[in-house]
Amino acid sequence: MAFRLRLTPRDSSFYGMFTAAAENLVTATDLLGQFVHEHTLREELAGRLRDLEHAGDQATHAIFRQVNSSFVTPFDREDIVALASQLDDVMDAIEAAADLVLLTHLGTLPAEMGQQVALLQRCAIVTAESMPRLRSMKDLADYWIEVNRLENEADKLYRRLLSRLYSGEFDALEILKLKEVADQLEEAADAFEHVAHVVETIAVKDS
Amino acid sequence: MAFRLRLTPRDSSFYGMFTAAAENLVTATDLLGQFVHEHTLREELAGRLRDLEHAGDQATHAIFRQVNSSFVTPFDREDIVALASQLDDVMDAIEAAADLVLLTHLGTLPAEMGQQVALLQRCAIVTAESMPRLRSMKDLADYWIEVNRLENEADKLYRRLLSRLYSGEFDALEILKLKEVADQLEEAADAFEHVAHVVETIAVKDS
Amino acid sequence: MAFRLRLTPRDSSFYGMFTAAAENLVTATDLLGQFVHEHTLREELAGRLRDLEHAGDQATHAIFRQVNSSFVTPFDREDIVALASQLDDVMDAIEAAADLVLLTHLGTLPAEMGQQVALLQRCAIVTAESMPRLRSMKDLADYWIEVNRLENEADKLYRRLLSRLYSGEFDALEILKLKEVADQLEEAADAFEHVAHVVETIAVKDS
Repeated sequence: MAFRLRLTPRDSSFYGMFTAAAENLVTATDLLGQFVHEHTLREELAGRLRDLEHAGDQATHAIFRQVNSSFVTPFDREDIVALASQLDDVMDAIEAAADLVLLTHLGTLPAEMGQQVALLQRCAIVTAESMPRLRSMKDLADYWIEVNRLENEADKLYRRLLSRLYSGEFDALEILKLKEVADQLEEAADAFEHVAHVVETIAVKDS
Repeated sequence: MAFRLRLTPRDSSFYGMFTAAAENLVTATDLLGQFVHEHTLREELAGRLRDLEHAGDQATHAIFRQVNSSFVTPFDREDIVALASQLDDVMDAIEAAADLVLLTHLGTLPAEMGQQVALLQRCAIVTAESMPRLRSMKDLADYWIEVNRLENEADKLYRRLLSRLYSGEFDALEILKLKEVADQLEEAADAFEHVAHVVETIAVKDS
Repeated sequence: MAFRLRLTPRDSSFYGMFTAAAENLVTATDLLGQFVHEHTLREELAGRLRDLEHAGDQATHAIFRQVNSSFVTPFDREDIVALASQLDDVMDAIEAAADLVLLTHLGTLPAEMGQQVALLQRCAIVTAESMPRLRSMKDLADYWIEVNRLENEADKLYRRLLSRLYSGEFDALEILKLKEVADQLEEAADAFEHVAHVVETIAVKDS
């Protein structure tokens, strides 16, 4: 609120690194959106997600190295590590969801899964928009409130999907396969919420 | 140990907020206890658990807002956030367990599930009793030792339940459904232990 | 990097306690290796793992007590608690995996499970080797990079196992049982990675 003098120059490149990581998640959720609806391109799309996930790993480790080599960091070192790890967890869950569809040989997916992915796309967009705001620490509450809201939506949708899975329409083996995928999508939503929690922690310390 | 002068007034309303959140868990585990044993009232009891869970969400966010607006907090801001989040996680798991029973259309539940819920009731009671003691930081070790003990009991019980599920008495579909519920009850026990871990962390920092 | 004067004597017994806990994990993963391959000795080996797990619980609580009674600790109290907890989580998952094999009455296990356990053995060895290095804070990056690599391997192996489980070779009930065990082994690998993350956090704060 009040004017504050920054006595030490702060390494600002972290903002760019977090923004890039979150923008990768926008790309990943878009690919996953296509993957869910398209049958024929699944192998190719899963391959691109795998590449994105590798790129994400590199980016995460670049952030870790930067933490180690920076004399001053814009926020607590452990929060930087946590934020990078949680963004990486989102990517891991997205890539795993696609891979599990392939390795369980699932065909057409329930419509609720397309809706799960649409929520993940929203989460990715608001996350990517919020990362540059870490610099000013302004308007971050809007972001984490929106992610919490989206995660609540995702929870409800996940329950609706479970309800359908156990409705009698599917046999035990199909339920098992579909649950593998649904659980990863749910994990991706949870991981987006964890990212928001870290941002909230950073903002709380700064306030 | 030694006499310590408090130089700053500390905002004490957090104690009341945590106590209220933990008392909500006592109510929730009592409702879940009825839910497990009664067939006819399940829809109504699940509805009341849903209302409690919403109230819990409000309470959690009230704590978050309080953290942001308080100039001085009685313990580290991030521990307050963690404690509120973990208490919320317990409520979420309890509400989810009841909802999953309804949406998988389960009838009579194995006796072991009633025992799981009885352990959760004990966890809720000792947690609610300990929250006011955060003010004095006295006798908290008794609380977390007891919760660790109860969580160990819950683990053993969960294994006994799994052993029964795989005994040949149930088919794959029934096992899947019962496991959905059992896993949520186990998650609630784990979340109680996480609450105790946060309290331990707070006490360790204070000591 | 630079020469640093230690103004306070630091309690060094934590290094020994962490090393002992990690060496217990080397023993546990060795027992699990035998367990996976031998049929006839499973009851006995599971009993020995149960004893080790109890010993691990004692060791964890000894570390917690030491944190409380030490005036000065070699690194942040909450990181000591986190490190002890995560080492304990590895042991819990290993013991659970063996117990689940017994209580689901599984016979010969897929070769991929033996490979999962071999990776856990590697994780345990590099973890036990790194613990004494917490004293000097030297060469720890090698350790956590190696654990991250092993955990990536474990992820790939887990996926390969899932792919086999859903290949049509197994029925739904067998898949359920095998997944219980595979998930615990995967959890053990994740827990080793969490140990490495705590070590990384400690090293980052120290740097």
